Amino acid sequence: MIILGIDPGYAIIGYGVIEYRSNHFRTIDYGAIITEAKTPFNERLEIIYDKFNEIVKRNSPEVMSIEKLFYNNNAKTVIDVSQARGVLMLAAQKNSLPVFEYTPLQVKQSVVGYGRAEKKQVQEMTKRILGLEKVPKPDDTADALAMAICHAHASGSLFNNNLSIRRGI
Amino acid sequence: MIILGIDPGYAIIGYGVIEYRSNHFRTIDYGAIITEAKTPFNERLEIIYDKFNEIVKRNSPEVMSIEKLFYNNNAKTVIDVSQARGVLMLAAQKNSLPVFEYTPLQVKQSVVGYGRAEKKQVQEMTKRILGLEKVPKPDDTADALAMAICHAHASGSLFNNNLSIRRGI
Repeated sequence: MIILGIDPGYAIIGYGVIEYRSNHFRTIDYGAIITEAKTPFNERLEIIYDKFNEIVKRNSPEVMSIEKLFYNNNAKTVIDVSQARGVLMLAAQKNSLPVFEYTPLQVKQSVVGYGRAEKKQVQEMTKRILGLEKVPKPDDTADALAMAICHAHASGSLFNNNLSIRRGI
Repeated sequence: MIILGIDPGYAIIGYGVIEYRSNHFRTIDYGAIITEAKTPFNERLEIIYDKFNEIVKRNSPEVMSIEKLFYNNNAKTVIDVSQARGVLMLAAQKNSLPVFEYTPLQVKQSVVGYGRAEKKQVQEMTKRILGLEKVPKPDDTADALAMAICHAHASGSLFNNNLSIRRGI
């Protein structure tokens, strides 16, 4: 399964594409979509939409894993982050990508093993799990890869659960 | 000038298309894009995007006038309204429509003449200005038409100001 992890935003959108098969990870692509503050907001949304489409075209992911937003995330930016996230969700839909949403707590639990892990720990484990030489920069990119790992683990256990159900265990 | 007024949302998006020329209004089209609660959110975003494109294709507006959102609008729905609004903004951008944003206060001042006007008064004046037999339903549609009138007035005074500047008045 090829998973596209997304850390939503409007100035920096982290993305990471990984393949997860038979409990093995392979890193395919990662980086960030960056839009500049001086660019009118509608154009920034268009850049996000178009770049997302390029990433999908280049990597053919099968699912998208994206951070769930909460009202208290950041009062000042929540409207603009949500507007950009809506564009990312539309782009996923237009590319027929099923979308899975995870909270930061779920990502920490999945990648490090406990929900109160610090950012550095999540990044270090992400690097180790994917066999990377360095923690990817910017942070948004590392977060996006962690988001993708989280879905891999979740779908893996889902798969195992399904197997258990089929086996009648 | 043909103006598309939009009252943003994700369950009901009001729209109204009017023509404003030489201080005269002509109502071209109005209604609402409706998405059902049982439909997955990403599909609702796609419906909004596609229906918006149909409205633009049908009416060839030259500008979009849309309500500005504030953090305190409605805590529970602000994220989803913003996500849908991002999709509307992207659709405007993809159709090369310049976007103008107005606050509810500005709309009331523009349509009724003072900012504390009640909803009913705004609707009644919208009906009168556009020479409609009834107040359009749902409220979102009437709000969208008021949004379009607001931009007509604003651009009218902008136009007059520009004339004044050119004339050196």
